[in-house]
Amino acid sequence: MGREILYFCTMSYVPHTICALSTAPGMGAIALIRLSGADALSIASNICGKDLTSAPSHSAHFARIRKEDNSILDEVVMTIFHEGKSFTGENTVEIACHGSVYIQQMILKRLLEVGCRMAAPGEFTMRAFMNGKMDLSQAEAVADLIASESSKAHEVAMNQMRGNFSNELRDLREKLIHFASMVELELDFAEEDVEFADRTQLRALVDEVLAYIAKLIRSFELGNVLKNGVPVAIVGAPNTGKSTLLNQLLGEERAIVSNIAGTTRDVIEETLNIDGILFRLIDTAGIREGADTIEAIGIERSHQKIQQAKLVMVMSDFSEMESAAEQHASMDPKEALEWATTLTAQYPEKRIVVIGNKADLRLDKNAAFTGETTVNFIPLSAKTGEGLDTLKTWLSAQVLNDFNTQTDTIVSNARHLEALERAQNSLSAAKNGLETGITGDFVAMDIRQALFDLGSITGDISTEDLLGNIFSKFCIGK
Amino acid sequence: MGREILYFCTMSYVPHTICALSTAPGMGAIALIRLSGADALSIASNICGKDLTSAPSHSAHFARIRKEDNSILDEVVMTIFHEGKSFTGENTVEIACHGSVYIQQMILKRLLEVGCRMAAPGEFTMRAFMNGKMDLSQAEAVADLIASESSKAHEVAMNQMRGNFSNELRDLREKLIHFASMVELELDFAEEDVEFADRTQLRALVDEVLAYIAKLIRSFELGNVLKNGVPVAIVGAPNTGKSTLLNQLLGEERAIVSNIAGTTRDVIEETLNIDGILFRLIDTAGIREGADTIEAIGIERSHQKIQQAKLVMVMSDFSEMESAAEQHASMDPKEALEWATTLTAQYPEKRIVVIGNKADLRLDKNAAFTGETTVNFIPLSAKTGEGLDTLKTWLSAQVLNDFNTQTDTIVSNARHLEALERAQNSLSAAKNGLETGITGDFVAMDIRQALFDLGSITGDISTEDLLGNIFSKFCIGK
Repeated sequence: MGREILYFCTMSYVPHTICALSTAPGMGAIALIRLSGADALSIASNICGKDLTSAPSHSAHFARIRKEDNSILDEVVMTIFHEGKSFTGENTVEIACHGSVYIQQMILKRLLEVGCRMAAPGEFTMRAFMNGKMDLSQAEAVADLIASESSKAHEVAMNQMRGNFSNELRDLREKLIHFASMVELELDFAEEDVEFADRTQLRALVDEVLAYIAKLIRSFELGNVLKNGVPVAIVGAPNTGKSTLLNQLLGEERAIVSNIAGTTRDVIEETLNIDGILFRLIDTAGIREGADTIEAIGIERSHQKIQQAKLVMVMSDFSEMESAAEQHASMDPKEALEWATTLTAQYPEKRIVVIGNKADLRLDKNAAFTGETTVNFIPLSAKTGEGLDTLKTWLSAQVLNDFNTQTDTIVSNARHLEALERAQNSLSAAKNGLETGITGDFVAMDIRQALFDLGSITGDISTEDLLGNIFSKFCIGK
Repeated sequence: MGREILYFCTMSYVPHTICALSTAPGMGAIALIRLSGADALSIASNICGKDLTSAPSHSAHFARIRKEDNSILDEVVMTIFHEGKSFTGENTVEIACHGSVYIQQMILKRLLEVGCRMAAPGEFTMRAFMNGKMDLSQAEAVADLIASESSKAHEVAMNQMRGNFSNELRDLREKLIHFASMVELELDFAEEDVEFADRTQLRALVDEVLAYIAKLIRSFELGNVLKNGVPVAIVGAPNTGKSTLLNQLLGEERAIVSNIAGTTRDVIEETLNIDGILFRLIDTAGIREGADTIEAIGIERSHQKIQQAKLVMVMSDFSEMESAAEQHASMDPKEALEWATTLTAQYPEKRIVVIGNKADLRLDKNAAFTGETTVNFIPLSAKTGEGLDTLKTWLSAQVLNDFNTQTDTIVSNARHLEALERAQNSLSAAKNGLETGITGDFVAMDIRQALFDLGSITGDISTEDLLGNIFSKFCIGK
């Protein structure tokens, strides 16, 4: 069942018992140190002077870890998981210790002294893969799950970890294996010039698989933005309230986040989470500092931002104080819509919305704005928050439009995308072969290649490069 | 047995089940969320749809936590601890989840939805105290243990957490209670003018207890520096190699620390760990930037640094290139020793050493330096590292001199120091009373006051203020 032999061959595997801090670095109330390997139970027993080797699986034990001089290093809880019943598939001990950095380091030091070695990044999950506890795409999903910052990214990773993607690939591969075996059978009887495989049926099968792969490939664009965030540009003339809008959007977000104490969000300073989707605001440094005026000259800079974005918000001043707007070299909705129309022609793949800000200053609120364009227009007030929900709905709709994330599998991993594209190429070649009546050998070769490519996603075919590449991206302790 | 009634009275206690992230904030492979309270098991069962209410104590269970819409939020391991067998003394569940910040937040959110409330800082440990699992001084030691950054700080906290200090206090209190009851018995029979208590014996007992308390009070100076680090000043003329020495000391430290991956040490940038003792280098910002020359004028600044320090290193140039030294307005060992002698007279409580740096440039290495002073002199080369061990030995010796940390109890908590000082005052008053033949009432009152003060350390007498003050210093999740 396991993949130990492959493991041994490809990774110069010495079945050492490994250890690592598995919780976030730094000080906490509790820290978790994990051991995995054949000797995990005896090593844990060794450092606490309590025989845990015959303890049942899934049992937790109070223990005192002692230093070499027998003084007490910490009072901990050790949880035992037996071979075959653990995440890695190996004997595993989780040590919940007091969370000082000093204690974490000293316990790891003790473990190294008594025969553990520090785990390489991702090594726990790699062992889970090697021991047949999960396939490669599921293992990769573990890393994605840990890195997920939004509901949708989490959902995609969770589906993948639960094996939904793997199951679909298995179905595809089974169909192709059937196909390949038919063609290859034909080859065995080549001299007799029989045709076991119904060519029409074969073509239909290849078309079906190709259509499915194409759908998976298309899903990557969504998968990628769900995972990494949707790039959004805010552009427009000065004095249209870009910084107020930004602060309003971010401010609400911050309030939600800070409800749960003890989390650091430094990294995602300039991101928004709307309906579980992560939006990354491009180059807002200038806006945050209220540097709208500096950007007056920055048309070129706007284009740079638009090029990096998937969604573009063009800001305009929707107040009726037209004289004021002129005075400040602002941009009214009409001008903004004209510009947006030009931009739409220039960047057909971007989704563009014109924001009519300062709607609260508009005296005649019922006087609907009628621009003669197809560009979206959202009136709002960044100051009062009015209309903000409409903007948020628009933003998330642009991502989820035409996509039912509940049922469809979403590819979010660039390695998977590449494998799918290679499989697509091979299958297209096979299809051409069938159509041009090429000999079965070549068709079979292309199908085998596609099978290899699809198999590389779940790791049914693995190479040293492939494994090293995947697991080195993990964080230590997983 | 428990302290529930006190709890109820003083803390407006509603016995809610509490939850918190117990591991360090941020992303890790695993995060630990802890629930404690009567409903912990049923709440945990609720969010994972698996009945854990009849699971045995100390058992770990794989489970899937589901969102409200029944989609899977995470696959986790839940470890069950029953009332009376857990850290807090209450039903406890530890949820080991995937360590993404998103998942941590969502699980906490789920728990709040189904009836948990977020734990206040230190609330888990407070409940342990309230349920009689530990006394106050032990509870405080938990916070110290988590914050400990060095071997000695850890040792002091561990001894306290294990109850050594509490046991000694209990002995003291028993002696005093015996004493007080003798005196009070006398009072009951006051009219008969009998004397149950042998006054000589009583005086001997008070002296014994007073001596012991004085010893504990003295230990605080050491306890405090072991816990918070020993302040060290590096002073001296420019061009004596202060920055090289600092970098050499810190550099070695960094190399040791970075051996264990995944730990952040930002906070202790300017600290040294020698023989398990933490040394805090005062105001080294200028030195780090190589600003020796700027300090040429900074005699006043040197004094400011010395005033904050416990240990002082006076730098001098021990190379024989005297002309060069003069040229650079450096300070030779003779000048440095003279200055150090003046400083010793000025600051008798500081421990001062003169460093003879650049010993590697000294041509006649055997020509011993003979200054006519009692100030310590250590020749070394910050550049080659020669002599650095002698300096380190000197530094740690200054802290551990005259103190056997293996056997003596060390007080490290300012609250305990204050309580001990109050007890000392009351007992001194009692002693005076005995000597001046004051009536038993007053003696008994002083003894009772001392008992109250000693009792406040372990929490045998508690007040609302006392509890609130102690537990609010904890980190969330403990």
